[in-house]
Amino acid sequence: MIKIYGKNCIYEAIRAKSRIKKIYLSFEVSKKDSKFLCMLNDKKISYDIVDKKQMDQIFGNGHQGYGAYREEYKIYNEGIIDEIVGTSKRLLLLDGIMDPHNLGAIIRSVDAFGYDAVILPKNRSCSITEAVAHVSTGAIEHVKIAYVNSLSTFALKLKEKGYWLCGTDASGNDSLESLDLSLDLAVIIGSEGFGMNKTLLKMVDYLISIPMIGHVNSLNASVSTGIVLYRTRKNGRIL
Amino acid sequence: MIKIYGKNCIYEAIRAKSRIKKIYLSFEVSKKDSKFLCMLNDKKISYDIVDKKQMDQIFGNGHQGYGAYREEYKIYNEGIIDEIVGTSKRLLLLDGIMDPHNLGAIIRSVDAFGYDAVILPKNRSCSITEAVAHVSTGAIEHVKIAYVNSLSTFALKLKEKGYWLCGTDASGNDSLESLDLSLDLAVIIGSEGFGMNKTLLKMVDYLISIPMIGHVNSLNASVSTGIVLYRTRKNGRIL
Repeated sequence: MIKIYGKNCIYEAIRAKSRIKKIYLSFEVSKKDSKFLCMLNDKKISYDIVDKKQMDQIFGNGHQGYGAYREEYKIYNEGIIDEIVGTSKRLLLLDGIMDPHNLGAIIRSVDAFGYDAVILPKNRSCSITEAVAHVSTGAIEHVKIAYVNSLSTFALKLKEKGYWLCGTDASGNDSLESLDLSLDLAVIIGSEGFGMNKTLLKMVDYLISIPMIGHVNSLNASVSTGIVLYRTRKNGRIL
Repeated sequence: MIKIYGKNCIYEAIRAKSRIKKIYLSFEVSKKDSKFLCMLNDKKISYDIVDKKQMDQIFGNGHQGYGAYREEYKIYNEGIIDEIVGTSKRLLLLDGIMDPHNLGAIIRSVDAFGYDAVILPKNRSCSITEAVAHVSTGAIEHVKIAYVNSLSTFALKLKEKGYWLCGTDASGNDSLESLDLSLDLAVIIGSEGFGMNKTLLKMVDYLISIPMIGHVNSLNASVSTGIVLYRTRKNGRIL
């Protein structure tokens, strides 16, 4: 069981029909949010009303009066390929994202732009923690997540299955704005400090860069990922 | 004086010719980064070499062996209008951004996409803290920042000076992708929880929304800001 907290996280867990052991609401929320209480009663989900101090003790900061115990998230391994090939037109490969805040924000963008899955290497990756789930504001309930032994081996398999590998790097010569959105795309984002690993770099079909004109010329990892996913979103079109 | 830390932050402070009292380098950095030491010697900037423990004591986590004391950032008030009108084609107004991580990441995007200034209301805004400066990875050295008494009063002044106010809201009917980029734009981003205030909403010339197709349909504030700034970047063109 893991703890989830924040109104959106709890709401999305219910909407995704995830297995929730118990919901905790603060006294204030139980008085204010009758709509939420009605939904819990309708769906026959049990809840406890506790005071703010108890909520703080169980869930720490940021719970907004809503918390729950939920079964662990389903985490895939290499086997995810059988679930995605043929159905998913958009996949995201993250090579070296270590920060939970960034990973949570990225999962939120993944869901928002119609990407179906996030694949990370087992080494040098942030795990799916309670903080990641919280920052994703519940988007994690709707996204498949896999940890694989080798990201480049997995990318090669995707290529054999017909995906176009689209890497991102400051040296990229392909325009983000001219990508063919009718293709099945596997987008690869590298780490902020070190970029994509060299094996992956050699393997990509496209290497794109985000046009920047400032002094610092680099973006927060979740921001650059968000821009690429927005631009390549499922059913998106170049206007 | 404030503390700044992290290689990029120190580097950008030097590049922007900011007033730095003293630079601290860890013993490891002093052995590895001879290029940086040469630059300090060239520019006659004094530095101390200290051990990692001392660096940790002074600068906490995330210093990477680089730290400095710098004079406080110049923060503008309403008077910023005299500096930006006529020279700045892109301004960002932030209505209710409270999280330092988000504000730092936003300042990074502001610099990267050729925006010149960020204007925030004095109330309900994150201050410019050491954490904000750190997350901005030095971009804060190149961006003008102002805190004003009333964001809507300031927005009205901008409108009178010829700026087009471009709000963002999930209810927005204008397409982000069809904005006229030849205009002088003042983009307004609301808070994650509550959006833009109603007075500002009534005032805008455009109200845009980011197309989303997922379940959760909301983005992290720094991600959505990054997407809007990318799409409206200075000298950008619709391809």
